[in-house]
Amino acid sequence: MTSAVDGGVPPHGRIPKYYAVKAQLLNLLSELGEGALLPAERDLAATFGVARSTLRQAIQELTVEGRLKAFRGRGTFVAAPKLIQPLGLVSYTEAVRDAGRRPGRRVVTVETLPPGPDLAADLSIDPATHVLHLERVLLADDEPLGLESTYLPTSRFPDLLDGFDPTTSLYRHLGTRYGLVYTEARERIETALATPRDAMLLGTNPSAPMLLIQRLSTDQHGVPIERVRSLYRGDRIGFETTLRAG
Amino acid sequence: MTSAVDGGVPPHGRIPKYYAVKAQLLNLLSELGEGALLPAERDLAATFGVARSTLRQAIQELTVEGRLKAFRGRGTFVAAPKLIQPLGLVSYTEAVRDAGRRPGRRVVTVETLPPGPDLAADLSIDPATHVLHLERVLLADDEPLGLESTYLPTSRFPDLLDGFDPTTSLYRHLGTRYGLVYTEARERIETALATPRDAMLLGTNPSAPMLLIQRLSTDQHGVPIERVRSLYRGDRIGFETTLRAG
Repeated sequence: MTSAVDGGVPPHGRIPKYYAVKAQLLNLLSELGEGALLPAERDLAATFGVARSTLRQAIQELTVEGRLKAFRGRGTFVAAPKLIQPLGLVSYTEAVRDAGRRPGRRVVTVETLPPGPDLAADLSIDPATHVLHLERVLLADDEPLGLESTYLPTSRFPDLLDGFDPTTSLYRHLGTRYGLVYTEARERIETALATPRDAMLLGTNPSAPMLLIQRLSTDQHGVPIERVRSLYRGDRIGFETTLRAG
Repeated sequence: MTSAVDGGVPPHGRIPKYYAVKAQLLNLLSELGEGALLPAERDLAATFGVARSTLRQAIQELTVEGRLKAFRGRGTFVAAPKLIQPLGLVSYTEAVRDAGRRPGRRVVTVETLPPGPDLAADLSIDPATHVLHLERVLLADDEPLGLESTYLPTSRFPDLLDGFDPTTSLYRHLGTRYGLVYTEARERIETALATPRDAMLLGTNPSAPMLLIQRLSTDQHGVPIERVRSLYRGDRIGFETTLRAG
């Protein structure tokens, strides 16, 4: 595959200066290795022979792309690679563990709501009943990766919260308590902007690129289990799946 | 589902002013309807009782999200909804046609290259052989939606370009000419920044949100067909798929 940097030269042949610096920085990052502290801006600008504003543009793009991470007051570091998760049916807990990282969840909201017509239709429930809304920040090694809102019909799971620790896997709880098997999931994937509230909960800024995944899961009897809206930090996570014909 | 706007209030309860304006604008857009011209900034700022810079921030976010489209010298219009494409194995041509839009491709590059070690391994070919690189801008109703780079082994398809119109479906051509069936695809989906060259070819600016999809397709005999790197405009397209357990 053509590397993103070498392939980034416009057809007219003029390479923007910040972009040439970005290519040089990428080489430097692989030499330094994960977790290393980036040298001071002043020194890097001198090394590359560019203005500090040009260097900053390159650093800002590499940060948005998740190659660099800034910690206020401590400096900028070479980031760990993006976590690549399987799309869909597998539990978040297991997928993060498989990647050698420590999964966690921080509960933000547990509430009961009327569903609204779209959600009621998706879950095949009476709009006059209620849904349980569980909103959690998804963590890997204590780093926030996503914000997940799950909506489940209370009529179907009236005692869902009994004996359920909301910092653990709902997927596993529904399996052991109700004998449910997640059998099919319809997923929609797109880019989105974080709302001010999302950004605050995820510790990002609202201009950071996000992946929005909306899912409707059904069980082994074809009955809808839940609708989930997940907003993931595009700089820290990606997804993969294997599709088969037929 | 909680609407993105109502759900966007930070827990401290202070709503940023631009965000309140964004919610009002969203209501206005659904009243105006697709294709309508947005009133002048000056008038809107007066209507909402905010500074023009506040209004501009709201308009800019709605543009990034694909709800508004600016045409230089003509004004800002209510955009058509995002095109939602199935992930994976289906032909782009068919998927766009199914969405009621006119598919097209603009050929940017046709070249033969040595593959490099990663690509050679993915395609199970000798690194001393060559790959055909076909780079095309994907269009819907003449609007650029994505930039697609396809890499195929020339040893396997030595006469691929004979009788192939590169503005048409490669998927269909490989089927009719070689009897190949796209049977499995491994896909990886993440956010990315456009390079200056990508942005120029797609008519966007490099800060626009992009979806990067990398795919390796194999045929009915389990032999790799192609590796594809596609960069899609996050403001104009989203993807969906149905996942099944097992």
